[in-house]
Amino acid sequence: MPTYRLTIAYDGSGFHGYARQPEVRTVQGELEAALFMHLGEVETSVAGRTDKGVHAAGQVVSFDVPEHLDEARLLRSLNRQLAPEIAAIDIRQVDPGFSARFSATGRAYVYRILNREAPDPFLATTTWHFATPLDRDAMNVASAAFIGEQDFASLCRKSGDRSTVRHVRAAEWVRHGDLLEFGVSASSFCHQMVRSMVAICVDVGRAKIDAADVPGILAAKDRHAARGAAPPHGLTLVNVEYA
Amino acid sequence: MPTYRLTIAYDGSGFHGYARQPEVRTVQGELEAALFMHLGEVETSVAGRTDKGVHAAGQVVSFDVPEHLDEARLLRSLNRQLAPEIAAIDIRQVDPGFSARFSATGRAYVYRILNREAPDPFLATTTWHFATPLDRDAMNVASAAFIGEQDFASLCRKSGDRSTVRHVRAAEWVRHGDLLEFGVSASSFCHQMVRSMVAICVDVGRAKIDAADVPGILAAKDRHAARGAAPPHGLTLVNVEYA
Repeated sequence: MPTYRLTIAYDGSGFHGYARQPEVRTVQGELEAALFMHLGEVETSVAGRTDKGVHAAGQVVSFDVPEHLDEARLLRSLNRQLAPEIAAIDIRQVDPGFSARFSATGRAYVYRILNREAPDPFLATTTWHFATPLDRDAMNVASAAFIGEQDFASLCRKSGDRSTVRHVRAAEWVRHGDLLEFGVSASSFCHQMVRSMVAICVDVGRAKIDAADVPGILAAKDRHAARGAAPPHGLTLVNVEYA
Repeated sequence: MPTYRLTIAYDGSGFHGYARQPEVRTVQGELEAALFMHLGEVETSVAGRTDKGVHAAGQVVSFDVPEHLDEARLLRSLNRQLAPEIAAIDIRQVDPGFSARFSATGRAYVYRILNREAPDPFLATTTWHFATPLDRDAMNVASAAFIGEQDFASLCRKSGDRSTVRHVRAAEWVRHGDLLEFGVSASSFCHQMVRSMVAICVDVGRAKIDAADVPGILAAKDRHAARGAAPPHGLTLVNVEYA
């Protein structure tokens, strides 16, 4: 059973998230329907189950098939079927036992804020438009508190009893003109973790709370201590790392 | 009667072009409806009547009003009403007699081609996806033939007896990774002129015709000598110049 690793990008605007659900349009639903036409039923694993409205520039999916496939041909067919909202960027055979989800050693996200008075029609679906000026330096003091291995229970929408300990490797705000970009990478993220980080940083950036409050928010290990979640459409899964 | 000059940007995907038409959604229709709520009926002049699907990053509109207006307040209101597809970027009072159309001394457009096998969901509405590799150097030899004052009848969808002589100041293809960008500026452009230039350059870039054929296409002064028009969604009006 050869195993394949497929890299895809998608504009999440028109989807109810990555994960297949009955009755609604999902990235997984569209992708598996397209794969089905070539390979029959396949079970896929995914690196990051992005929420409704969240985008991906480098999402990774893996699956096993009974026989070797013609990679270039499959890529072309997928692109014809899935365009324009989903693109198939790369496909390659990987070692048996590879799982897009369980083999991943790191995920990187970017969250984009258009921080100016006037909106930008070309960024409307991929950035959060926030007119109040934000203090990038203060936001970087806040985001430094996220770095390291710690319990992010305050930033996680809990599902069951799973651990909320994560190792955040980098978290930084960079300004490009009117665009504020938050780049964050970790072993993995719990549900709504990045958007919860962004909501905290924005409240620091507009001086609603102080950067010095952030360690206390994390120490509370309580979702109610946080500042909610920033809107999904500013968020993009940009890269997944494998050892 | 104070005169105002308003700069707007729009994603043309959802509009049947700039110019108002009955029964369909147009940029002018949306804009004038929004202005009407604040200023009553206003007659607007526009620098470039973009076609269906064409975008603008710096379109200019002018209008007269009976009394001075609060520029910042109007800008905020317009942005609230017109977002996300149209943004009001700037408004300022100008000398009486100013016309966005007739006072303009130059227009600049950019045409974008994503030149690689895989599509990009984030560029789907603003670039022409063209998988066959294109030879940028050959395209620049072709586009050099457009520069100068000449009769562009071969590149114009004629309307009546109007002159098709135009002065093209610059026309150049630049490559940024997989993106090929055609920047072109002129005193003004006739209908479908930029898209006709792009269609010619693309046919040169994929060796369907030779760059040396381009002067002959122009000399023919016949639309049938050209290579049709590139799709509208790759085109953006980026700037309008006033003396």
